[in-house]
Amino acid sequence: MKKLILLIVISFFFSCKQDKKDNSQTITNTEEVSNQSLNRVEPPNWWIGMKNTELQLLVHHDDIGDYKPSISYKGVTIKKVHKAKSPNYLFIDLAIENASEGKFDIEFTNESGDKKTHTFELKQREKPAEDYVGFNSSDALYLITPDRFVNGDISNDTPLANEGEIALQENIINRSDNYARHGGDIKGVTNHIDYIHDLGFTAIWPQPLLTNDMKEGSYHGYAVTDLYQIDPRFGTIAEYQQLSAKLKEKDMKLIMDQVANHCGLYHWWMNDLPFEDWLNYQENYETNKENWNWEVTKHSNHRRTTNQDLYASEADRKGNNQGWFVATMPDLNQRNPFMARYLIQNSIWWIETAQLDGIRQDTYPYPDKTFMSDWAGAIMTEYPNFSIVGEEWSYNPLLIGYWQEGANNKDGYDSNLKSTMDFAMQKKVVEGISEEESWDKGLVKIYEGLANDFHYASPKDIMIFPDNHDMSRIFTQMDGSVENTKMALATYAVLPRIVQMYYGTEILMDDFEKPGDHGLIRTDFPGGWEEDSVNAFTGTGLSEEQKDMQAFVSKVFNYRKNSEAIHKGKTIHFAPFAGTYFLYRTFEDETVVLILNKNEDIISIDLNYQQEIGLKGKTLKNIITGEHVKWGEVMDLRSKGVTLLTTNL
Amino acid sequence: MKKLILLIVISFFFSCKQDKKDNSQTITNTEEVSNQSLNRVEPPNWWIGMKNTELQLLVHHDDIGDYKPSISYKGVTIKKVHKAKSPNYLFIDLAIENASEGKFDIEFTNESGDKKTHTFELKQREKPAEDYVGFNSSDALYLITPDRFVNGDISNDTPLANEGEIALQENIINRSDNYARHGGDIKGVTNHIDYIHDLGFTAIWPQPLLTNDMKEGSYHGYAVTDLYQIDPRFGTIAEYQQLSAKLKEKDMKLIMDQVANHCGLYHWWMNDLPFEDWLNYQENYETNKENWNWEVTKHSNHRRTTNQDLYASEADRKGNNQGWFVATMPDLNQRNPFMARYLIQNSIWWIETAQLDGIRQDTYPYPDKTFMSDWAGAIMTEYPNFSIVGEEWSYNPLLIGYWQEGANNKDGYDSNLKSTMDFAMQKKVVEGISEEESWDKGLVKIYEGLANDFHYASPKDIMIFPDNHDMSRIFTQMDGSVENTKMALATYAVLPRIVQMYYGTEILMDDFEKPGDHGLIRTDFPGGWEEDSVNAFTGTGLSEEQKDMQAFVSKVFNYRKNSEAIHKGKTIHFAPFAGTYFLYRTFEDETVVLILNKNEDIISIDLNYQQEIGLKGKTLKNIITGEHVKWGEVMDLRSKGVTLLTTNL
Repeated sequence: MKKLILLIVISFFFSCKQDKKDNSQTITNTEEVSNQSLNRVEPPNWWIGMKNTELQLLVHHDDIGDYKPSISYKGVTIKKVHKAKSPNYLFIDLAIENASEGKFDIEFTNESGDKKTHTFELKQREKPAEDYVGFNSSDALYLITPDRFVNGDISNDTPLANEGEIALQENIINRSDNYARHGGDIKGVTNHIDYIHDLGFTAIWPQPLLTNDMKEGSYHGYAVTDLYQIDPRFGTIAEYQQLSAKLKEKDMKLIMDQVANHCGLYHWWMNDLPFEDWLNYQENYETNKENWNWEVTKHSNHRRTTNQDLYASEADRKGNNQGWFVATMPDLNQRNPFMARYLIQNSIWWIETAQLDGIRQDTYPYPDKTFMSDWAGAIMTEYPNFSIVGEEWSYNPLLIGYWQEGANNKDGYDSNLKSTMDFAMQKKVVEGISEEESWDKGLVKIYEGLANDFHYASPKDIMIFPDNHDMSRIFTQMDGSVENTKMALATYAVLPRIVQMYYGTEILMDDFEKPGDHGLIRTDFPGGWEEDSVNAFTGTGLSEEQKDMQAFVSKVFNYRKNSEAIHKGKTIHFAPFAGTYFLYRTFEDETVVLILNKNEDIISIDLNYQQEIGLKGKTLKNIITGEHVKWGEVMDLRSKGVTLLTTNL
Repeated sequence: MKKLILLIVISFFFSCKQDKKDNSQTITNTEEVSNQSLNRVEPPNWWIGMKNTELQLLVHHDDIGDYKPSISYKGVTIKKVHKAKSPNYLFIDLAIENASEGKFDIEFTNESGDKKTHTFELKQREKPAEDYVGFNSSDALYLITPDRFVNGDISNDTPLANEGEIALQENIINRSDNYARHGGDIKGVTNHIDYIHDLGFTAIWPQPLLTNDMKEGSYHGYAVTDLYQIDPRFGTIAEYQQLSAKLKEKDMKLIMDQVANHCGLYHWWMNDLPFEDWLNYQENYETNKENWNWEVTKHSNHRRTTNQDLYASEADRKGNNQGWFVATMPDLNQRNPFMARYLIQNSIWWIETAQLDGIRQDTYPYPDKTFMSDWAGAIMTEYPNFSIVGEEWSYNPLLIGYWQEGANNKDGYDSNLKSTMDFAMQKKVVEGISEEESWDKGLVKIYEGLANDFHYASPKDIMIFPDNHDMSRIFTQMDGSVENTKMALATYAVLPRIVQMYYGTEILMDDFEKPGDHGLIRTDFPGGWEEDSVNAFTGTGLSEEQKDMQAFVSKVFNYRKNSEAIHKGKTIHFAPFAGTYFLYRTFEDETVVLILNKNEDIISIDLNYQQEIGLKGKTLKNIITGEHVKWGEVMDLRSKGVTLLTTNL
């Protein structure tokens, strides 16, 4: 909700400013586009050996609708050519069967005999489709806001401004403004993969890196204005590929953050839309942040339950799916078949181009849900071992479960989505640890929250997190209690889930000053800028508390990295009693024990009640302190906090 | 939870008193038992023409284990005789195939040649099994606490005390003590069926009427000490049958409240248990209300999620299912096959004996869940059109849904239970109406709560209620707002649900003095006692507010009684906007409109947004006021409250 409110505020600012400008040719920083005589052909290239042998090219150029395309290349045939409502588009259906890698020309001829030529390339795939192995419960993702992590290349901070071209609309670095660009980039991430690796993480999820040529506040990346370009302020496609390669060297994964629901208001196609239904409500958009009647505002009504609700009115259903997320984010109409193809191909293009290991899909319950299933289905058909996680911000397990593949929904809907996000359990852990213990408050929230797993198609494929870019930092959620923060982090790390943490949480980054403020949540990582006096990469200037937490995170996540018990072990937990909660993960000889204890004073726990675990007489190691403990009949817990034990000595 | 805490307190009192006494022969007020030479044969009779041709008799008499039974009656054969651990029991498996109705003797002979004879009767069934049609969404149930409704027969207030027999343990009427007996009885209910009928209800659910010969606080009926007897303070089996007959005359249904989880501490078998595992933890019961470690207390841990939780420890699972509900309620072990048969036959015996139309099963998630499925399955096999509603007090739709037949649970569990109770939606309605409106509070709770229906196997077969005997009166939940109470009552009445209301709610009975106090919630219905100065049946002494509410309830429920739109209509609702919520129920030509409006001042609603309902130009009638309104483009809502409209003029 905070995200929503913030975006409304942003949208309000935007709507007060000047008209849109044609920025379709502003950015020309990659060879694929600049070498062509046509304005745009998308996707800019493709590959041979894809399971799906069909490809639909979007061609955009003045009056291209009057031209007829032809191709002479073995294995490539034009199956159909579609004109659009705008004269400046053609959609060309290709069949690519048994073609060799290589470049070929697409010739465009009009009735007057004028010719245009576009060279298109079919590349060899880097690896078999089956080798694109997605993330899973053995992974821990490090979520990064790229603009706020590390400024690895100051030369791209204000790109193009010195080259005589039209600059990006928002092209001023201002670190003192939390809603402006700060200069972080892909190179900055690449340069610090070792740090993330050493913390114990196995994958990174950077927020969107595609061009967001918006007027302001676009540092977050969710208002994409070009779906085939890396934002020049973040770097280049080549740099994105280098990041992917560097991750693979460290046996780490790259998750791309994608947005199928909307684009940015200054997307290149906004002044020349191919069809009348390219966008939803493209004809009559007005902002009225005071009025929640989406029929007037064309805002989404944000009533996401309309996706499932048996009783939802058609009007409300349309309101959720077709209304605009915010004023500055036009709502893509995925029911337009050309848009649908465009989005699917775009995702596949990035998987191949950047050797992705997974996709995080934004605002999952907002686009047309039939399309979303087709989209995920198309990707999973092409890459059977891939992973996609969809964002449904809901505390209701029914909705979280609905979106997961295999949910066996009564309406027959199958999302084809391996992973959803567990906002419900995220909250239960925070409440469970923070609240005073009582019959139905405190640790029992964790216990009963986790019991809901019986409902999910595959609980271990759901992603959990202490915090993310849209919510208060876990240290803030925990009211500044380091002990509680540790309890929470350890809990998220050992649950039968994929786990994700937000950059900087390991050094207790917070948003106490203005809790929930997005700019503040996404504060610069100290040490990411040359001028920083504190450097979290080296430890310079960190407080003892911060260093301690950094070490704690490293211990927990490095243990997790190789723990089969956590990755795929059986889970057993005990109903909370006497202010304590015991959760066990076991795989073969390895048992990991999570103990949450809220008692400030020493308490003796009778372990006989938990004898079914079979630890009696065994020696266990404390994962944090390294101490060995013998499992007897009684365990003394000395003070409040988390204890993490393992039978792996 | 309140129920639980109260019961703990009660159990504490009980445990401080004297030892149990043998009261197995105390009550002898029905012919079936008194004519026999043996202490007990149960069931006391049976019927011919049952689908299940097997019957297991429990025989209890001194040293009966040494005797061999024989029967000579066409169509009745003894298949097997089981001895128990106690010498005073025999369990006799009968096959009843093509037998005629009639009485026959069971001869018991021991090795010394001693004989005992018991006459057993096989009766003709009153009607075909298919004609036992349960309650469904066309029904509105009136829940009654029999001790507190009407004292229709003062002669049974302190039964047996004058006949030289041992009196019931709690045999003093004390209306000034909310936890003592007040004298209400079956006759009182029977005498006022017309009142309930005229209010618009189609069924009654009285709390258990079976003998509760407990020391104190047993007026509620949930501590049964004889599963085959009506408590003499409530009346006789004959009177119970008369109640059933009177209801049928008025085309109304009788729902029996049954308890398979536990019995009362003074149940007749407590001093001579047939087996060592007749009860759970029968050997070592201690009360320790301070200690929640059920291994010590043998209390249930009340962790009901262990029924579903994939990760629940065996210890906790056992703790929920095998621990005692409270100290005064021994936990029946339904895994003992003789106990299982006993309970199933007992339920069927009452269906036939009292011509029941449904069963409400108490504390559903506490007994062995495999047994509960068998129990409901056995009843539904015998009576395919019957209904059973199970009590799972949970606000979690996952748990509510789990217990409903057809839930398609991942663990394969099918409860055979047509109906569960919707505590979740009950609460959402209260919160939705009471809370200040905001993005995620207020009416949206109703809207999103109802959206969860997509999860249920059959939402319309779930039971909803404004209040019941364990929770605050709806007027109290609504902080004394008559307007809000009306909004809530109308909402419960039109939702796609079976609906149930607690006696006295129609006259604004409340528990403000001590909210949640069970004794107070279950206050005497005014007019139920001769000495009452206020009489809600006649209206004497009722305030204008009470009369108004009584009329309101009558209007709403009498409309509901014949409304196919409410019984089985399609539901469409609109996301709340501007402090209003619109819900429509439609079947063929009938549309019922529920409008909840929180605006104190006049507000104009643009009805064009809801045009899909198709009411434009139609005339509708206000169900409460009788006024006619024309459905136009705009509707003015003049003040806060509920509007209930119908196209049935």
